[in-house]
Amino acid sequence: MAEENVIKPVIVLVQTQMAVNIGMCARAMLNCGLDELRLVAPRDGWPNDEAIAPATDAKRIVESAKVYSTVAEAVADCHQVYAATARIRHLNTPAVTAAEAATEMHQATLSTDGKNRPAVLFGPEASGLDNDAMSHADRLLHYPMNPEFTSLNLAQAVLLFSWEWWSNRAEATMTYEQGWEAAPRVELDHYLNRLESELEKAGFFPNPEKRPNTMQKIRALFSRSNLSSQEVNSLQGIISALISKRG
Amino acid sequence: MAEENVIKPVIVLVQTQMAVNIGMCARAMLNCGLDELRLVAPRDGWPNDEAIAPATDAKRIVESAKVYSTVAEAVADCHQVYAATARIRHLNTPAVTAAEAATEMHQATLSTDGKNRPAVLFGPEASGLDNDAMSHADRLLHYPMNPEFTSLNLAQAVLLFSWEWWSNRAEATMTYEQGWEAAPRVELDHYLNRLESELEKAGFFPNPEKRPNTMQKIRALFSRSNLSSQEVNSLQGIISALISKRG
Repeated sequence: MAEENVIKPVIVLVQTQMAVNIGMCARAMLNCGLDELRLVAPRDGWPNDEAIAPATDAKRIVESAKVYSTVAEAVADCHQVYAATARIRHLNTPAVTAAEAATEMHQATLSTDGKNRPAVLFGPEASGLDNDAMSHADRLLHYPMNPEFTSLNLAQAVLLFSWEWWSNRAEATMTYEQGWEAAPRVELDHYLNRLESELEKAGFFPNPEKRPNTMQKIRALFSRSNLSSQEVNSLQGIISALISKRG
Repeated sequence: MAEENVIKPVIVLVQTQMAVNIGMCARAMLNCGLDELRLVAPRDGWPNDEAIAPATDAKRIVESAKVYSTVAEAVADCHQVYAATARIRHLNTPAVTAAEAATEMHQATLSTDGKNRPAVLFGPEASGLDNDAMSHADRLLHYPMNPEFTSLNLAQAVLLFSWEWWSNRAEATMTYEQGWEAAPRVELDHYLNRLESELEKAGFFPNPEKRPNTMQKIRALFSRSNLSSQEVNSLQGIISALISKRG
């Protein structure tokens, strides 16, 4: 299936108090490729200009956010609902970690040819989701944090879920491209031979028996450094400079 | 080894502009079990009361943060340095994802019986780390985000790295060679300072304006090599030998 036709998780912010936090959530969503934001009864009304600046490039997500009166309406077209909460013993709803939830969502996407729509509910900043909101959830979604300090702010909670979703998707490639060209090994070899010769002249090898072992260690050091030709040239220049004032 | 004796990654905030962001970084660290914060030349001075409230329960981390004038001093006792940046083509330093960095750190912890101290550098909010700061790094650390919007705020960047470290700590497996001990960074720093001084005497820097850039490239080359103390000693010995017969 083409990635652009896949339905992504919907982020549902329930009774958010501060519009600035809505903007920061939108920004975290965009970082991780999410774009559908829904709001349930935001405290200070909607639309709200205070959400725009903190959203930075995610302004479009803020502007296209839909507003609902109730959680039920907000998730009406969704297939699974996750409730983000630190209270994981509740109503006998099963709890999963953010990473497990992300995996479940990707599996559901695969098995429905991209037509499955999950939602994640996030509660008000001060109190979190109430029992009524949590009763809409298939699953409680939690973050296995440092047990001595589990409190996350709203945008950080949205970021961590979104990050788990993004970095666990099948398309995620953890490789990187560097445009980097290592020097042909012969250049390193010329450098090391010259270094050895200059060290010899300088009396660096008082015990000839130990010389091969010493040079192996020096070679190993430079061999693992994946040097470019430019870097080998710099190292050659350093030898030239350091010996330049010899008798 | 007992977990309480294990050295954890140090978070180093370089030239942070807003003290409130330092507090938010401390909070994110505490969420994920990190507790050692270092500051390099914070713009608005230190200590700074504005960092306390946003730290919430992480007030202790803020209050025990140490301040340094330079990156070199801040990482002097560290064994590997990671530079968090969106610019992953730089100075030929290898780039790894936050998750890969976390895995490397856990492996180094295992192979050193908990004595290895890694550091992660985070730059100023507006501009990120500059070339000089990045030249201290073994690795560039990046977040494979939505390519259309990769900008993370400072506390979010700290949170995502810390989260990867925290949530991967159980899965770490031992693949590093046993018994390998990286040199504390201060030893590399002494070596590079001496090298620069000797190169200066030898007239290696005909154009003074290019000197910082040249030294950054040389520093980057050695920074990524995970040198042992013995290897740094060998490099010092090479300088001594090469200059030994100077007038």
